[in-house]
Amino acid sequence: MQDVKTALAVRAYAVQDRLDALLPSLSAPEGEVIEAMRYSALGGGKRLRPFLVMETAALFEVAENNALEVAAALEMVHCYSLVHDDLPAMDDSDLRRGRLTVHKKWDDATAILAGDGLLTEAFAVLADSKAHPEADVRLKLISGLAAASGAAGMVGGQMIDLSPNRTNLDLDGITRLQALKTGALIRYACQAGAILGKAGSEEYQALSLYAEDIGLAFQIVDDLLDHEATPEETGKPTGVDSDAGKATFVGQLGLNTAREKAEELVQSAKSRLDIFAGKAQLLRDTATFVLERRS
Amino acid sequence: MQDVKTALAVRAYAVQDRLDALLPSLSAPEGEVIEAMRYSALGGGKRLRPFLVMETAALFEVAENNALEVAAALEMVHCYSLVHDDLPAMDDSDLRRGRLTVHKKWDDATAILAGDGLLTEAFAVLADSKAHPEADVRLKLISGLAAASGAAGMVGGQMIDLSPNRTNLDLDGITRLQALKTGALIRYACQAGAILGKAGSEEYQALSLYAEDIGLAFQIVDDLLDHEATPEETGKPTGVDSDAGKATFVGQLGLNTAREKAEELVQSAKSRLDIFAGKAQLLRDTATFVLERRS
Repeated sequence: MQDVKTALAVRAYAVQDRLDALLPSLSAPEGEVIEAMRYSALGGGKRLRPFLVMETAALFEVAENNALEVAAALEMVHCYSLVHDDLPAMDDSDLRRGRLTVHKKWDDATAILAGDGLLTEAFAVLADSKAHPEADVRLKLISGLAAASGAAGMVGGQMIDLSPNRTNLDLDGITRLQALKTGALIRYACQAGAILGKAGSEEYQALSLYAEDIGLAFQIVDDLLDHEATPEETGKPTGVDSDAGKATFVGQLGLNTAREKAEELVQSAKSRLDIFAGKAQLLRDTATFVLERRS
Repeated sequence: MQDVKTALAVRAYAVQDRLDALLPSLSAPEGEVIEAMRYSALGGGKRLRPFLVMETAALFEVAENNALEVAAALEMVHCYSLVHDDLPAMDDSDLRRGRLTVHKKWDDATAILAGDGLLTEAFAVLADSKAHPEADVRLKLISGLAAASGAAGMVGGQMIDLSPNRTNLDLDGITRLQALKTGALIRYACQAGAILGKAGSEEYQALSLYAEDIGLAFQIVDDLLDHEATPEETGKPTGVDSDAGKATFVGQLGLNTAREKAEELVQSAKSRLDIFAGKAQLLRDTATFVLERRS
């Protein structure tokens, strides 16, 4: 566990640094939208998705500066989704990572535009040759990111999360919601490493399944933390989903079965990595970390 | 003029058809966001930007199915920007092209997500080999679209448009606002044709300058129509910008000088096309159309 935390911190530092360099800074009238983009993207966080890009890329000895570029682009998309999801018209959250959300610090319009700007910038980063010297690899990265984050992925998941029948989703419904809303981007993180590394189909598939397992475990643990953790631990209000009457894994399964399910998924995730043998130890430890995290 | 109108209608029909095929349709819980994307993208309009892509591409004898793909992607970005700009937090518009705006027909959350989905899908379309067989060309198209539509382009322009000092912008300030908010995408439309056609730098530059001229003329004419046209002609309320106390070209220059300025720009735009000789006649007529349009 300590190794994962250290590795996460090291990667998070590198990603923070790269995001800082990639995002423009500007004192023109439109400078505020850029400030808001930077506030969102540079506001810390676990940086789990960039970490997964970098560690899966490392399996194939991808040049670190390439992986870092893709990691930063993916984090921009993750941050855009948080900024938009936090808006009053959506989840209406005032706090994120212990700080005011973008629309609370500025206003709704700035938050909408900052999200739009981050999403757009992510594709600019992936199209640049710094992401990978080969054009075909960059195009695969772009197609994959668009598929994971669009209406058939993350955007669709958020739409389900806001739909009127959100309160009475059954277990399959919640699982599908998770697979789209948070799972798609986590899966893309691991697929991006494989794309950068020109993985064979067996390796690509193994990393996709690993990501699906930890993605679902991640969401179940989120539900558990919503019940069990304090706002001080998570940096945001807790008890929100159950208070809002949303169907959750914990609500459907109960605390104990939900925890067992998360444990099973983490075991399964680890077994997906067998073909990588010892090289994938940090990714196995990451699965444990997803289970045991408190924020 | 009749030729331009006919050509616009023909291209608009093809773009409508292609958008219809490219946009997913789905009856799942998240289907509503896709419905909203389709409502926005298939809601008609002049389709000026796609038209410019296709007609500039035609100068270089680009395969029409390639140009159509890029045209559709660009129109998705244009439509996303309209959906987000119409939101209550931004321009707060109830009507667009004579119909309810997306947030009035659905709600703010659906409009935010539909915009996000359209923007994302545009990059997916450009990354696909249907847009152009060569990877390098597709990457240039993607980089160009991201630059034109992000914080240093359209998103930055909208931010200026919403900024507190929007009411007292001077002529340079309004010109810069226009160059970002509407000019960047119009310029990209013409650059995309040149990119698809592997234009030389002189041709690329000529089309960029042509686009800058008609883009600025387009905005001045918008301001003139806001004063002179009826809501029945434009399909949206008129007098909005001046009522809101926003600085406009008409407010700065007066009606007559603003019209003269637009006429000068259209003459300039036409002269940019000299190197294309007779092949560019339809684009010259398009400049006239931009000046004489009533909606």
